[in-house]
Amino acid sequence: MSFEIIAIGNEVLSGMIVNGNAAKIADAMTAQGWSVARHTVVPDDPDILEKSLRDALARSSIVITTGGLGPTCDDITRSIAAKIFHSPLERNAEIAKELEQRFGKTLQSLEDQAIAPTKAKRLANSVGTASGWLFSEEGRHLALLPGPPREMFRMLQEELMPHLKKIMGESSYTTRTLHLSCLREDDVDPTLRRLAKDYPDVFMGIYPGYGTVSVRFSGAQKESIQRCVEEIEREFKTYLFDSPNGKIEESLQAWFKEHGLTLALAESCTGGKMATQITSLPGASSYFLGSFVVYSDSLKKQVLGVSQKTLEAHGAVSQETVKEMLAGVFKVTEADWAIAVSGIAGPAGGSHDKPEGTVWAGIAARGQPPELIKMYLPFGREIFIAVTANRLLGSLLRKARFSIPFTGFEQ
Amino acid sequence: MSFEIIAIGNEVLSGMIVNGNAAKIADAMTAQGWSVARHTVVPDDPDILEKSLRDALARSSIVITTGGLGPTCDDITRSIAAKIFHSPLERNAEIAKELEQRFGKTLQSLEDQAIAPTKAKRLANSVGTASGWLFSEEGRHLALLPGPPREMFRMLQEELMPHLKKIMGESSYTTRTLHLSCLREDDVDPTLRRLAKDYPDVFMGIYPGYGTVSVRFSGAQKESIQRCVEEIEREFKTYLFDSPNGKIEESLQAWFKEHGLTLALAESCTGGKMATQITSLPGASSYFLGSFVVYSDSLKKQVLGVSQKTLEAHGAVSQETVKEMLAGVFKVTEADWAIAVSGIAGPAGGSHDKPEGTVWAGIAARGQPPELIKMYLPFGREIFIAVTANRLLGSLLRKARFSIPFTGFEQ
Repeated sequence: MSFEIIAIGNEVLSGMIVNGNAAKIADAMTAQGWSVARHTVVPDDPDILEKSLRDALARSSIVITTGGLGPTCDDITRSIAAKIFHSPLERNAEIAKELEQRFGKTLQSLEDQAIAPTKAKRLANSVGTASGWLFSEEGRHLALLPGPPREMFRMLQEELMPHLKKIMGESSYTTRTLHLSCLREDDVDPTLRRLAKDYPDVFMGIYPGYGTVSVRFSGAQKESIQRCVEEIEREFKTYLFDSPNGKIEESLQAWFKEHGLTLALAESCTGGKMATQITSLPGASSYFLGSFVVYSDSLKKQVLGVSQKTLEAHGAVSQETVKEMLAGVFKVTEADWAIAVSGIAGPAGGSHDKPEGTVWAGIAARGQPPELIKMYLPFGREIFIAVTANRLLGSLLRKARFSIPFTGFEQ
Repeated sequence: MSFEIIAIGNEVLSGMIVNGNAAKIADAMTAQGWSVARHTVVPDDPDILEKSLRDALARSSIVITTGGLGPTCDDITRSIAAKIFHSPLERNAEIAKELEQRFGKTLQSLEDQAIAPTKAKRLANSVGTASGWLFSEEGRHLALLPGPPREMFRMLQEELMPHLKKIMGESSYTTRTLHLSCLREDDVDPTLRRLAKDYPDVFMGIYPGYGTVSVRFSGAQKESIQRCVEEIEREFKTYLFDSPNGKIEESLQAWFKEHGLTLALAESCTGGKMATQITSLPGASSYFLGSFVVYSDSLKKQVLGVSQKTLEAHGAVSQETVKEMLAGVFKVTEADWAIAVSGIAGPAGGSHDKPEGTVWAGIAARGQPPELIKMYLPFGREIFIAVTANRLLGSLLRKARFSIPFTGFEQ
């Protein structure tokens, strides 16, 4: 049995919105070991939509749509699905009452949203007004989810997944995902190639991030997968980080909370990116004091006490400047750990000696000598910032957890 | 003539990678007034791929694929396209020579990448090794682009678009996109509904962002579109911001550069998000001094001089604290303008008086009395941070450009 995902709507089709819903759904299916055969994006057009749904149901036993459930006249998915599955549509007094209780009598779309296909299972929407629906007939299933990502994802997890698990039956399929920081795809690839030979029954995937790499093993052979995981754990122990979402800051927060320690940053070239990542998680205030985004030389001097002499003699992107930034963080705050970074994000500002992509960074625990290194990450501004942030957070974690020196990277 | 976009690859299909390529291509087509009929994602499977390409070419006159051009054995797009378009594949000595000059003799995929379909136009890859191809036969066109977004986008713009413009012919289709800050979809919707009645020949779209809204007019009637634009300009003059990518920080940077003024921030609940957005653009150092990400109370006191008494009496999320944060920024830096913000991003930390989503923020020019307001943005942590950042940057721009008071928002 395979799945197809169909996004409905001109916003996605015209490129105003990226189809993040399809990726979220596909990822949830893949994690269960279910095979996704196709994603499609089609317009808000009844004829095209009906044909696309019928084609998909002919190819695949389960089809999941997103979008086209709202109250505007563009939204046609529900009635077309009802037609395909021979289900009458009727006003459902219970739904009307529930919507009225949750959103009040003034909800303009109340009457429309209370029209329900009588032969479909309702998928409740705990966030918005539009219900989802699951139609089933002769081994074919069509699930309608709303378009707004938050509503879609809650409904997928809370309402649709339990039904799908019943339909798909108990599966012996296992998926294990491991996240590694401070490594590139190339560093992990030889190991995976070797494992692929030893364990041909395991499906392996390698997924490069910005300064991180994720490895996924899946298949029906639990023991083989476990052995692959153990090999990676053995070979890359200090690079691994635990994180439900593959975010280094999740692992970092867990470590700092566990040890009751605090962190502060001095960010020049990353421009607040590390702080933004760290504070994207609830609970960051338990260890994160803050960040000095000292983008200008004047703030480096006025706030962190970097000396004019150092800046003149060595420049803002230098070992000496970063060392003084780091010292400044420890002086101004009570942080137990600190990171300081200064680099040339580009495209302007590079020179022969310090080309675009050059970074000086330092990491230290209070009272310990700082470790300072130079990196060269010539990936263009956006990726430069993302990779620099993740490498530094990853290096901090490795140093904190395993006392791994904050060594440089080849590239 | 309509377009279809097909992404090839298991990484996209399994949800590990979002299909950003399709959105980029669709956006470029839509901006030309060309109609995108469908996006599809299919696996690295020769039979499925061949059938998908033939189906798409039967429906639409121009099909653009991404992915499946690399040197690994999974990459099959080129040979299937050559089969469909009856084109032999031959070693092309010129391509081989060029790749050798650019990447050296050690390029492992050199010989594979030099195999070229003889009846297709080559699309040069200025970034990577894989060439793209444009096949044409009997009014049907199939373009193959590489999967890595940077390579894909450069090839689309530099190589494919000139061919497509020739194929599509001179078009009188016009697209105009307007960006508005500090407004919600609901604020603009009534005006668009009115315009839709007055100008039925104009296609209108409204695209909500986080704290911004974009409006797009398109169609063949240039004058009608111009009149729609003028109506929006008249009605929402002070909310509009010029930006090629719909980013408020682009417009902000232009204004500050033009006036030779500087900006510094004190960010608590936004955690560095405003700084990250501002510094994502090259040239930010021309006006942006930096940001104090004073996430903890200790940093609010130690760095910005917020008094213990104020924090105890009013809390970190209060008019009084934000006022002192703002004063601290002006004291510690030489900035001409400053923003300070403190709020409850949630999910924890809310109370009856200050529920999750409560924000206090201040904006001021040096020497002017600060304007302080309370906002309530209960959208959940991630969206809360994004909306808060954009609203504040938008409010700063309105105040700086048009002396619009930094007034509160209803929600």
